[in-house]
Amino acid sequence: MSESKSNCTCGSSQTNGILSTIPNHTALPRELQDEFNDPNHPANLICELCRLFYDNNWVTGTGGGISIRDVDGPNPNIIYIAPSGVQKERIQPWEMFVVELPDEKILRTPNDIPVELTKSYKYKHSACTPLFVSCYKLRDAGACIHTHSQNAVMITLLYEDQDVFKINHIEQIKALPRLQYNATTGKVDKIGSLENFETLVIPIIDNLPHEEDLTPTLNEALIKYPGASAVLVRRHGIFVWGETIWKAKVYNEAIDYLLELGVKMKLAGISTIKPE
Amino acid sequence: MSESKSNCTCGSSQTNGILSTIPNHTALPRELQDEFNDPNHPANLICELCRLFYDNNWVTGTGGGISIRDVDGPNPNIIYIAPSGVQKERIQPWEMFVVELPDEKILRTPNDIPVELTKSYKYKHSACTPLFVSCYKLRDAGACIHTHSQNAVMITLLYEDQDVFKINHIEQIKALPRLQYNATTGKVDKIGSLENFETLVIPIIDNLPHEEDLTPTLNEALIKYPGASAVLVRRHGIFVWGETIWKAKVYNEAIDYLLELGVKMKLAGISTIKPE
Amino acid sequence: MSESKSNCTCGSSQTNGILSTIPNHTALPRELQDEFNDPNHPANLICELCRLFYDNNWVTGTGGGISIRDVDGPNPNIIYIAPSGVQKERIQPWEMFVVELPDEKILRTPNDIPVELTKSYKYKHSACTPLFVSCYKLRDAGACIHTHSQNAVMITLLYEDQDVFKINHIEQIKALPRLQYNATTGKVDKIGSLENFETLVIPIIDNLPHEEDLTPTLNEALIKYPGASAVLVRRHGIFVWGETIWKAKVYNEAIDYLLELGVKMKLAGISTIKPE
Amino acid sequence: MSESKSNCTCGSSQTNGILSTIPNHTALPRELQDEFNDPNHPANLICELCRLFYDNNWVTGTGGGISIRDVDGPNPNIIYIAPSGVQKERIQPWEMFVVELPDEKILRTPNDIPVELTKSYKYKHSACTPLFVSCYKLRDAGACIHTHSQNAVMITLLYEDQDVFKINHIEQIKALPRLQYNATTGKVDKIGSLENFETLVIPIIDNLPHEEDLTPTLNEALIKYPGASAVLVRRHGIFVWGETIWKAKVYNEAIDYLLELGVKMKLAGISTIKPE
Repeated sequence: MSESKSNCTCGSSQTNGILSTIPNHTALPRELQDEFNDPNHPANLICELCRLFYDNNWVTGTGGGISIRDVDGPNPNIIYIAPSGVQKERIQPWEMFVVELPDEKILRTPNDIPVELTKSYKYKHSACTPLFVSCYKLRDAGACIHTHSQNAVMITLLYEDQDVFKINHIEQIKALPRLQYNATTGKVDKIGSLENFETLVIPIIDNLPHEEDLTPTLNEALIKYPGASAVLVRRHGIFVWGETIWKAKVYNEAIDYLLELGVKMKLAGISTIKPE
Repeated sequence: MSESKSNCTCGSSQTNGILSTIPNHTALPRELQDEFNDPNHPANLICELCRLFYDNNWVTGTGGGISIRDVDGPNPNIIYIAPSGVQKERIQPWEMFVVELPDEKILRTPNDIPVELTKSYKYKHSACTPLFVSCYKLRDAGACIHTHSQNAVMITLLYEDQDVFKINHIEQIKALPRLQYNATTGKVDKIGSLENFETLVIPIIDNLPHEEDLTPTLNEALIKYPGASAVLVRRHGIFVWGETIWKAKVYNEAIDYLLELGVKMKLAGISTIKPE
Repeated sequence: MSESKSNCTCGSSQTNGILSTIPNHTALPRELQDEFNDPNHPANLICELCRLFYDNNWVTGTGGGISIRDVDGPNPNIIYIAPSGVQKERIQPWEMFVVELPDEKILRTPNDIPVELTKSYKYKHSACTPLFVSCYKLRDAGACIHTHSQNAVMITLLYEDQDVFKINHIEQIKALPRLQYNATTGKVDKIGSLENFETLVIPIIDNLPHEEDLTPTLNEALIKYPGASAVLVRRHGIFVWGETIWKAKVYNEAIDYLLELGVKMKLAGISTIKPE
Repeated sequence: MSESKSNCTCGSSQTNGILSTIPNHTALPRELQDEFNDPNHPANLICELCRLFYDNNWVTGTGGGISIRDVDGPNPNIIYIAPSGVQKERIQPWEMFVVELPDEKILRTPNDIPVELTKSYKYKHSACTPLFVSCYKLRDAGACIHTHSQNAVMITLLYEDQDVFKINHIEQIKALPRLQYNATTGKVDKIGSLENFETLVIPIIDNLPHEEDLTPTLNEALIKYPGASAVLVRRHGIFVWGETIWKAKVYNEAIDYLLELGVKMKLAGISTIKPE
C-alpha cells in the first residue's frame, strides 16, 4: 500500500457531483430510510469501504468496484453492487444496484430512486457484475472486492511472462484461507488458514477491452486454481472475495500487503519464493 | 500518488494565517453568507478540493491552483479562481477571484471583502488565470485543475527529451475521455471514453519563468493535440480540465495514477507502450 | 513508514464485522462500562493505538498485536491483550483478554462478554501471548507492540544472512533507551538514552510456523542482547517493548523510522554503519 | 513527503501519556484558559502543526521541534517552544516553554503548570532552543521548524561529500524567498521570491552528539549563506525558518517537496542542477 492515496475523506461532505445539493435522504421511501439507518446494511458498508479504498488509491478515478451479498439478511441471495463510472468515495446507499441470485433478477436500481436525489443521472450497471456473480456462484462468496491497486498492476507487469504470482515464507500469508475442491459437492471449501511457509498462488489473467468479457477466463482460473482467493488481471487490477464482506476486506488487505512486498522484493532482486 | 502527503486536515481548524482570528463569516454581506451556505457552491468546492489535493502533496507550499466555471449556475460564464500565493488547504470561500467570460471582467476579488476577514492582506490574481481561461475558451471546460504533483514532474524529467508522455494497455485509461476535433464547429467534442488498449497522449511543454507566459505554448498544445485532456509542464506540474469540476477531478486522479505507474514502469525498465 | 496505509479511520464507525449491529456498550456490566469511560484505560488505549497502527500498514489484514500492562492501575500485574485474528482497527475495549502475571491466570476473556455484544464469536487468545509475557518477565516491560511493518520485513530480507540489524550515526537513535544488564538484580536497567553516534543493534530471529514457538529464540535474543529494545522476526515483523505503553509507542516509531531509512540506505548502496 | 506517516490523528483524543486523565484544562489559571481559547495563539498553533508534522513522519518518535515568536502579540519578543522528549502530536498548549528575547529570560515553563495537568512530569527545555534563538537573532525569524524528515536525511546521505544541496529549474523553487545581506543594517532582507530557474542552495552542516553544540556551525552557515532559508543537518534533519509561522510552514513544505524530488532525481541518475 505504499502507493496509497492519503486523502482523509472522513470530514468531507459526501457530496457526489450528481447528488450534491441533497442534504439528507428524506426524499427516499420510508422503508429505504429505515434500512439505511443501519450502519451495517450492505449498502452502507459499500459506501464506508469505498471511502477506505479510495484513501488507499485502490478506486480513484472511478476505478474498481465492490459487491456484497446480504448473507445475514432475510434473503441471502440478494446482492448489492456499486454502480459503474461514479466517484467511489462519494457514493450513497441508494445508488446501489440490487440483484437477486441465481437468476440475476434486478430488484432495484438507482434509476428507481426519486430524481431529486439522482438529478436524473442515468446509472449504469457495473461492468464487473458478471465477474462478481462468478465469485458468488463458483465460490459461494459473501462479498467481492475489485481494486486497481498499483501493487496489483505492477506485479502483473514485473511478471509479464507468468500466469501466476507466487510468494511463500512470509507471515502475512497466514491471514489467507486454505481452500480445497470438494469432489462430492463440487464446491470449494474453506478448511482453515494457510501456513506462513506455504506458497500463496494468485492466478493472473490477461485484460480485455470489455470487463464483462473477462468472465470466461476468470471462470477458468477459478476452476483451475481452487486454492486461490483472488485473481489478478494483468495491467488492470485484482478481484478478491471472501465468505463475508469482512473476510473479503481482510483477504484483500493481506494480499495487497503481499503484492506490495512482492514488488519491492522483485525490484531488490529477492525471489518471492524462498530458495531451499 | 505515492508521493502523497498524509495530513488529515479534516479536523483542523481552517485557520488561514491571514484570516486566522475570524471564527465565522458573519462579517460577510448577507448574500455571500447565503451563497456559501451551499456546500456545492463553486467557491466551497474549491476549498474542499484544495484540502484534498493538499493531502496528496499536489498543492503544498502554496503550489498549484484550481478554477471552476459555474456551469449549473444562473450565469455559466462566471468562473471562480483560487488566489495566488496562499496556503491552498486553508483558503476560504470568500477568497476567490470571480471573473466573467469571455471578456474576463473581474466581478469580485477577495480584496473587496471586509478587512476584518482579510486583515488587509492584498490578494493577487493567480498567475494560472490565462491558462485556465485558455482551457475554458479552447475546450469549453467546466473546471481546470493545476497541480505540482511529483509524479507529473518526475515523468517530465524521466522523458526530458520527449514532448509527449504516452501510455497504453492499462485499464485506468478507460476513465479518460475520447476527444475529437469537430471541423464544423471548430470545437473539441467528447465522444465517449478511451479504450484500455488505446494510447493516452499527454503533451509536455517546457516551463518558463512566468506562468502566464506559458499561454501561447499551452494554446499550441491544445490545438496540436485535440485528443489531450491534460498538458504537462516540464519541471513544473500538470494542467487537467473537464466538462465539470467532478469530471476534472476524476480525470486528474486517473492521470496522476497513470503518471505514478509510468514513473514506476520507467524506473523498472518497462515500456509504457506495450510491445506488439 | 513509507509503506504506510493512509486510511483515515477516525470518522469511520467502529463497526467490527462481529459486533457490528451494537451501537453502544450498555449491554456490558456496569463496572466495565465505568472502566471503559476512562479514555486511558489500557483496553481503550489498545483500541486507539490499533487504529493508528492500522493507518501505518502495521496491522492490516488482522496482522500484528499489542499488549499493555496496567502499570498505573491498582494491580500492575494485570495485562490486557488484543485478541487474535480480528480486524485490529475495529476492536472494542471489551474484546481484550485480561491476564494476571506471573501465573498467567486468565481473569477475563471476550468470550465472557454478553453474547449480544460478541454475537457468540469465539475469540482466540493471541498467538503472541507467550512472546509478550517474555517481554514482561525478562524486561519488566509495561507494554509490548508487535507489527508486520514492511520496513521490518524488508530489512530482514535485505540482510537475510545477518542475525542483527545495525545502524549508527543517525539522530533518531537518540529516541531509544540505553539498556544495561544488572548482574546484581539479574535485570536489565534503563540507564538513559543512546547517543546519536552509537550503534543500535536489533537482533533478528528466524520465523517459525507457530508464533508461540518463537518464545525460546526470543528469550535467547533477550538474554544475548540485553541492550536491545526490540527483536526482528525474519519474514514476519517486529516486537518492540517499553516501560510504559507510551514509551513502547515512541520506541516503535523511532525504530520503524530507522528501519525505513535502513532499507533506503541499503538499496542506495549506503552502509547503515558509518565508515570510520 | 513520500516518507510520510499516514496517521489521522484528528479524531484521536489528545491524550498525552503524561497528562492523560485530564479531560479539559479547567485546572489552568483563568488567564491561560482565556489565552488558549484563541485557536491562533502560538501555543495552540504549535500543537496543531505538530499533529500535521507527525502525520508527515517529520516528528515521530518525539523527534523534531518547533518554536513560534509572537510577532502579532503585545510583546513580539516572546517565543514559545515545544518541550523536549515528548510525543509531538500530543502536546498541549500549556506544555510550552515561554522565553523572552533577547536575554532568553524564561517567563513560563510547563513545570509551573498545576501538577494535576502535568502529573509532576519534569519537562526539559528543547535542545534545539539555542538553534531557534540563532534564527530569531540572525534572521529576525518569526518561527522556526525543525524536522527529522527522511527526505532531509537521505539528501545528506546521498550527497555525503557535499556541504550544500543545490537544485534549480523546478517550479516549486518560486515558493522560497530571495534573501539578501544588507551591509548597512547587518541584517538579511527578504527582497521577493526566487525564480524557478534560480538555484536554491541549502547548506549542510555535520551532526554532533549534543544538539546545542550545533549552534556555532549553524551560525557560521547563516552568515556564510545569507540567501539560505534553511540548514540541513547531516544524518539528522533540517531547520527551516520564516517571517511568520505560516511562512515557515510554507517554506518547510516547499523545501521538503524539493528534497523529496532531489532524492528521486539522484536515485534516477538525474542531476538536480539542470545541464546548460
